[in-house]
Amino acid sequence: MIEDKNQARTPLSELGEFGLIDHLTKNFKITHESTIKGIGDDAAVCDFGNQQVVITTDLLVENVHFDLSYMPLKHLGYKSVMVNLSDVYAMNAMASQITVSIAVSNRFPLEALEELYAGIETAAKIYGVDVVGGDTTSSTKGLLISVTAFGTANKEDIAYRNGAKPNDLLVVTGDLGGAYMGLQVLEREKKVFEVNPNNQPDLDAYTYIIERQLKPEARKDIIKLLKDLEVKPTAMIDISDGLSSEIIHLCKQSKVGAELYENKIPLDPQVIATCEEFEIDSTTIALNGGEDYELLMTISQEDFPKIKANPNLSVIGYITEESRGMHLITRAEEAIPIIAKGWNALDN
Amino acid sequence: MIEDKNQARTPLSELGEFGLIDHLTKNFKITHESTIKGIGDDAAVCDFGNQQVVITTDLLVENVHFDLSYMPLKHLGYKSVMVNLSDVYAMNAMASQITVSIAVSNRFPLEALEELYAGIETAAKIYGVDVVGGDTTSSTKGLLISVTAFGTANKEDIAYRNGAKPNDLLVVTGDLGGAYMGLQVLEREKKVFEVNPNNQPDLDAYTYIIERQLKPEARKDIIKLLKDLEVKPTAMIDISDGLSSEIIHLCKQSKVGAELYENKIPLDPQVIATCEEFEIDSTTIALNGGEDYELLMTISQEDFPKIKANPNLSVIGYITEESRGMHLITRAEEAIPIIAKGWNALDN
Repeated sequence: MIEDKNQARTPLSELGEFGLIDHLTKNFKITHESTIKGIGDDAAVCDFGNQQVVITTDLLVENVHFDLSYMPLKHLGYKSVMVNLSDVYAMNAMASQITVSIAVSNRFPLEALEELYAGIETAAKIYGVDVVGGDTTSSTKGLLISVTAFGTANKEDIAYRNGAKPNDLLVVTGDLGGAYMGLQVLEREKKVFEVNPNNQPDLDAYTYIIERQLKPEARKDIIKLLKDLEVKPTAMIDISDGLSSEIIHLCKQSKVGAELYENKIPLDPQVIATCEEFEIDSTTIALNGGEDYELLMTISQEDFPKIKANPNLSVIGYITEESRGMHLITRAEEAIPIIAKGWNALDN
Repeated sequence: MIEDKNQARTPLSELGEFGLIDHLTKNFKITHESTIKGIGDDAAVCDFGNQQVVITTDLLVENVHFDLSYMPLKHLGYKSVMVNLSDVYAMNAMASQITVSIAVSNRFPLEALEELYAGIETAAKIYGVDVVGGDTTSSTKGLLISVTAFGTANKEDIAYRNGAKPNDLLVVTGDLGGAYMGLQVLEREKKVFEVNPNNQPDLDAYTYIIERQLKPEARKDIIKLLKDLEVKPTAMIDISDGLSSEIIHLCKQSKVGAELYENKIPLDPQVIATCEEFEIDSTTIALNGGEDYELLMTISQEDFPKIKANPNLSVIGYITEESRGMHLITRAEEAIPIIAKGWNALDN
């Protein structure tokens, strides 16, 4: 009942999301032998026996992470699972269980939640994970989804962010920038719809990038592929915030530098065409777009012959000594320092 | 962009929290051999090796589960961990790891979150759990905390809700109703404060029940005690919603009935005195109050000699055949059917 009117106030925006997590969790001590890895990677790792268990969690908030005016609830349910599974796969582990909690305001009828859960169910079925728990409660405003995912791997297979070594190859799966450009198209159509609700948008030219935004797929297939190819990444991270941001995470934790070649970054023709239409540089989008849920990994040069013919894996650069820093080598052969411009959850 | 104006709308209140969870999750299939127990108990159980892992999650929403006008943030952090650990202990397992995610609006400065995390840290330290992950994001309104907890137990030690047998004793730890009466006192003082902010409340007569509300303790000690006494509960559940509601869960899942003796329900003198002051029946409060985070268990009659002298454990009734139903036997020796009036998270 008694309030100190002179409390110190540091705005959260000063720290950014990662700074905030570091700051708030710096005093947490690891005390259990079973805790192999706590905060600081895509997922925690605990050893409960023959295999190691990886655990990861994400929170999705309405009007921060998604906009229901163009995100169907079924897709949202699907995506909320993908976001988490992607973190499990980024450890080179296979996902086995998830828990899903939601907080929801009274404006949602049962049918809306059924749609949401249908998407969760579809994702769980396709990706072969069991939904083993959760909590459902009311909120005073909007919808919020919290998913925690669990997976297992043999101890020697787990790929952390901190294992990259100089001369390793920098490899990315799939193509980048699609999810972000899909969002730009959806945002534009939302504005058109607000002005003229009878307008029927023709989105045929954008089907791939809209699907990348609304229904991303986590790269479970890559974990199997790497096993089949007998390649263990020296380090791995999923691309949720954008390529720049993930390269920085990986290099900082591995204490290395990197050279990234602009002309090697994989882009879908629809991303290139839409960037031209929106008059945005496609490299900027690939570097900073986020939400593609592809995997960024480093592999030993020795493993290059095993991956070189594979259409799922693109070599986009290589790892250097830390002192050389992180650079993008442009098509004009200029070296530009890589800086994080990734999407910041606390900007909102 | 196209909205069907004739969508079916079933209000969520028609189902209640448990009905809603059952409804939304009824199609989820368990496909992994490692998933021993999914939804439907205090925690999920997964088998990853030598020991089994229990996993549980809870979501706490501002102005639904807590009111920051009288809940200090440090206590809130502590309580959000307790709520989850209580579910782990209710499986007769020991907690080992937690993940903590928060969504927070811009009205909270860093110092507020530091307080919250200080409470989480204190709880983790005292209870010996590692914080192994989490997610921090912005919300458009208020504060939301999602905690997931993990624990381990030998397979043969795990106590599910469905193991109670006729003639088992119904046993409760600690005393009941304190957390609810603490809330009543805090709500009253909040109203007084709104009228006269200079009023300095004298809460000395309510310290125990206010602490039960603001800083509950999960019963880790009981799990150790049961091990020391060599008692394995046939069934166990934590008391989060109120004794009636938990007895109903336990009996329904075990397919049994129960007789509960009003004169055996453990009440602290401060609960009795405060109930008299508020002119509320203390049995009603013990049955429906909730948030005490004590444990309700059933034990075999054979184990009675092991527990009978223990001040932490009160025998409050016994289990009957399912056909006999669930009844409270009053001090006047009347048998009244037990019905759930527990706190319903979706009423809000």
